[in-house]
Amino acid sequence: MIKPSIPKGTRDFSPEVVRKRHYIFGVIRNVFERYGFQPLETPAMEMLQTLTGKYGEEGDKLMFRILNNGDIYASATQARDTRELAEAISEKALRYDLTIPFARYVVMHQQDLAFPFKRYQIQPVWRADRPQKGRYREFYQCDADIVGSDSLLNEMELLEIYDQVFTQLGLEGYELRVNNRKILAGLSELIGLPDKLQDLTIAIDKLDKIGVEGVQDELAGRGFGEKAVSAILDFLAIAGPGPEKLAKLSGLLDSSPTAQRGIAELSQVLQSPLAGWASAPVFDQTLARGLNYYTGIIIEAKAPASVKIGSIGGGGRYDDLTGLFGLAGLSGVGISFGVDRIYDVLEALNRFPDMVQQSTRVLFLQMDKESLASAYPLLRALRDRHIPAEIYPDHAKFDKQMKYANKRGIPYVAIIGEGERAEDKVSLKDMRTGKQEKLSPGELLDRLDVLS
Amino acid sequence: MIKPSIPKGTRDFSPEVVRKRHYIFGVIRNVFERYGFQPLETPAMEMLQTLTGKYGEEGDKLMFRILNNGDIYASATQARDTRELAEAISEKALRYDLTIPFARYVVMHQQDLAFPFKRYQIQPVWRADRPQKGRYREFYQCDADIVGSDSLLNEMELLEIYDQVFTQLGLEGYELRVNNRKILAGLSELIGLPDKLQDLTIAIDKLDKIGVEGVQDELAGRGFGEKAVSAILDFLAIAGPGPEKLAKLSGLLDSSPTAQRGIAELSQVLQSPLAGWASAPVFDQTLARGLNYYTGIIIEAKAPASVKIGSIGGGGRYDDLTGLFGLAGLSGVGISFGVDRIYDVLEALNRFPDMVQQSTRVLFLQMDKESLASAYPLLRALRDRHIPAEIYPDHAKFDKQMKYANKRGIPYVAIIGEGERAEDKVSLKDMRTGKQEKLSPGELLDRLDVLS
Repeated sequence: MIKPSIPKGTRDFSPEVVRKRHYIFGVIRNVFERYGFQPLETPAMEMLQTLTGKYGEEGDKLMFRILNNGDIYASATQARDTRELAEAISEKALRYDLTIPFARYVVMHQQDLAFPFKRYQIQPVWRADRPQKGRYREFYQCDADIVGSDSLLNEMELLEIYDQVFTQLGLEGYELRVNNRKILAGLSELIGLPDKLQDLTIAIDKLDKIGVEGVQDELAGRGFGEKAVSAILDFLAIAGPGPEKLAKLSGLLDSSPTAQRGIAELSQVLQSPLAGWASAPVFDQTLARGLNYYTGIIIEAKAPASVKIGSIGGGGRYDDLTGLFGLAGLSGVGISFGVDRIYDVLEALNRFPDMVQQSTRVLFLQMDKESLASAYPLLRALRDRHIPAEIYPDHAKFDKQMKYANKRGIPYVAIIGEGERAEDKVSLKDMRTGKQEKLSPGELLDRLDVLS
Repeated sequence: MIKPSIPKGTRDFSPEVVRKRHYIFGVIRNVFERYGFQPLETPAMEMLQTLTGKYGEEGDKLMFRILNNGDIYASATQARDTRELAEAISEKALRYDLTIPFARYVVMHQQDLAFPFKRYQIQPVWRADRPQKGRYREFYQCDADIVGSDSLLNEMELLEIYDQVFTQLGLEGYELRVNNRKILAGLSELIGLPDKLQDLTIAIDKLDKIGVEGVQDELAGRGFGEKAVSAILDFLAIAGPGPEKLAKLSGLLDSSPTAQRGIAELSQVLQSPLAGWASAPVFDQTLARGLNYYTGIIIEAKAPASVKIGSIGGGGRYDDLTGLFGLAGLSGVGISFGVDRIYDVLEALNRFPDMVQQSTRVLFLQMDKESLASAYPLLRALRDRHIPAEIYPDHAKFDKQMKYANKRGIPYVAIIGEGERAEDKVSLKDMRTGKQEKLSPGELLDRLDVLS
C-alpha cells in the first residue's frame, strides 16, 4: 500500500483552519454586500480558448489542463511536440484567476445584467507555480469588480472596502498604495518609448524586490538607453507627501496629456471630501503591478510592516477587459484580497477572535446505560437553541471520554450519573478552570446559552 | 473571435442563484455544527493513486484527470494505448466525491485527530458523466461522517440531521428510507450465493427505475438461477408497516446471523425512544444503494412525491473505509445532501424565503453634482448599520438610474435633489408600492433599518 499524500502545493484544511479562513471570508463578504456587490460563482473548469493568451506566456505554462475523456490515444498520434500534444488531448483548464471568468460571464450574460454590474466572487484558483512559503497551487481569491461605470467613485469605494475589511480584521498598520497606469504611460512617452510601457511596468514592478540598481540593470537589459534609464530613476526618486509628489510629477510630465489625466484622477480620489478611511491611501509613483490589462488607477494593499509579508491585495481599472470576448467599451475596476496571506498576517499578529473556534459547547459523557436517555432531551434542547452539543457516542472509559473533550477543545463536559439522576441534576465541568457544579436542567441550558 | 462558452455540464451561478444555494448550504452547515460536526476542506486535486480503483471501473473512466506540467511529449512516446498514455502524462485528478478524500485525510492525520472524528465537508466534486437534466459535471456535495465509533446513536443522529435540515427548509413530505446491507447479505446467504452480494445489490438498486420485472431480468442476466430469483422476489414483495416487515424478514432470514444482526440494528434505531424526528424514517428492504463500501445501515432521503425528483440524499455505514489506505478497524457512518436536487425541489415548491434575495436595500440616485456629497454620509451611516446601500456611480438620466434599481430588484430609491437639500430631507420611494415620502436623515435610517 502506498502512503497516501496530496499533490504538491495543495493543502488540507483542518477544522480550526477552515474556521479561521471562513471568518476572513465572512468579513470580506459582509463588507462587499454592504457596498452592493452581488455574489457570482463560475465553474472551476473553463474552455482553453477562454483562458489562453490572457495571462502571458508564463500563465499559459502554469495552467492546469484537464485531459479530455474518451480515446485520447487516437487524438495524440499526430502531435509532434508537447504543445501540439496538449492541444490534441485537452480542451479545458482550471481557472487561473477570477477576472477572466468574470469578463467571460459578463459577455455571455450581457442581455440579462443591470449595468453597472457589481459582483464579488470568492472561489479557488489553480496555478502550477513552484510551491514555496506562502505560494500554493490551489488558493482562494476574493474579488470585487464593477463593470460599466467610469466614475472614480468606484475607485474610492473600493479603497474604502479595503479599509473597512482590514479595520474589521484588526489589521492596524496595513497600507494602501495607489498609482495610475496613465502616469507610467506618460513616463514612457516622456522618454520617447511609448511602445515599451509594458517593459517599463515589469521593471518598475520589481523595485521592492531588487532595489533601484536592480531596476537599472533590468531596464538596460530590456534595451532602455542611458538617458531613458536616468529619466526613469529621476521619476522613481521623487519623494515627499502625496500632494507634493503629485505636483512635482505634474511638472515633470507636463508634456503628456495622458499623465495629466492620471494625476487628476488620483487627486480626485485621494482628496475626495467624501472619503472616510481609517488609514488614508498613499500615492506611490513606483507602484506598477504586473498585470497587463490595467489602464487607470492601480492599488496595492500591504500588510503591516512588522510582519514582513508584503502584498495582501491589489487591483485597478481596466478599460477594455470584456473587449477580449467581443464586448467593447465597458470600463471596469476591481480589487482582490489575498486570503492566504491575510491569514498569515492575522496569525502572526494573533488577531483571530476566540469566538471563531467556538464549536461544540458541551459534551455529555456516557457514564452508564441510563445516561443516554437522561442526556438526550437536554441535548435536543441545547441544539434547538442553536448551541452545538454532543454526546460521546460509545460506552467508553471516563478517561477516554474526557480526553476526547480535551483534544477537541470542548469547554464544558456534562455528566449525568446515578447521583445526578436521583436529584434530577446535571454535573457541569468547566474544562478550563476544572470547576464542577451541579445544575438543574433549566440552569444548565441558561448557563450554556450565556457563557462563551 | 470565438463566442465564449463554458464546458459542457458546468454552470455559472448568477447572484440570485448563488444566494439561494448559500441559503441551503447555510441551513445544512448550521445543523451539522449543532450536532458537533467540524468543517474540513480538502484540495480539488488528489493523487491518482488515492482515487483510482475506489469507484469501480466506471468511476475511473469518469474522472477528470489533470495533465502533468512540463514535457509531456517525451513521457508520452512509450504509450501504446489511451490507458498507458493517460498514466504517462497525468498523475492527478479532480476529486470524485468527498468520502475518499476524507478517508485519506483521516489516515494521514490519525495522530492529531480526536476519535470519534466527526467532520462535515461542503465542496464541489467533478464527474465526466453525460450531462442531463439534474446531472452536472461539477456539483457540490455536503457530507457529514463519523469515523471511529460503532454506536448506532450515530445513525440515529444522522437521521435526525436529515429530518432537521428538511424541516427547516420547509420540505414537508420528504421521506427517509432505511435498510441494512446485512439484511441483503443474509438474503444472498439464504439463496446460497453469498459471493454475489454485489450483483444482488446492483440489481435491487434498479427496482425504482425498472420495476420488479426489470429486476427479474437483471438478476437472470447476472446468472442468478430461477429458485434464487424467486426467493429474491419474495423478499422484495414483503409488505406492511415497518415493525411487521422486520418481523417477517426475521422469520425468512432466521438462518442468517448476519441478517439477524442487521434487523436488530434497524429495530434499535427505528424504535429508539430518544428519537425526535418530524417524519419518522421508514424501513424499506428494497433499498440497496449502489456504492460498494456500505456494510451496515443504509439511508436514502427522497423528495416529496409531488415533485418527482427522487433521491435528495443518502448515506450509510462502512466498516472499513480507511482500510483502503492502511488504517484498519475504524468503522464509519455518513450522510450526504444532494444540494442541486434540493435546490430544484425548493424551487418547485416555492420554498425559498424572500429574505434570501435581500441584498442592496436602497439606491441613492445622483440627481446633480451636489447629491453625491449629500448622500454619501447617509450611505456610510447605513453601511455602518450593516444595511447594504449603493449610490448610482455615474451622472446618468433619471430613467436610466431608476431602470437599474428596478432590474436589480432594489426595494427603495433615495433621492436628494435641490428641494430635498433645502429642507435637509431625503425623498424615499418604495419601488414595490410606488409610494414616495420625504424623510429626515434620521427617519430614513430608522425606516431602512426596520422594514424588510
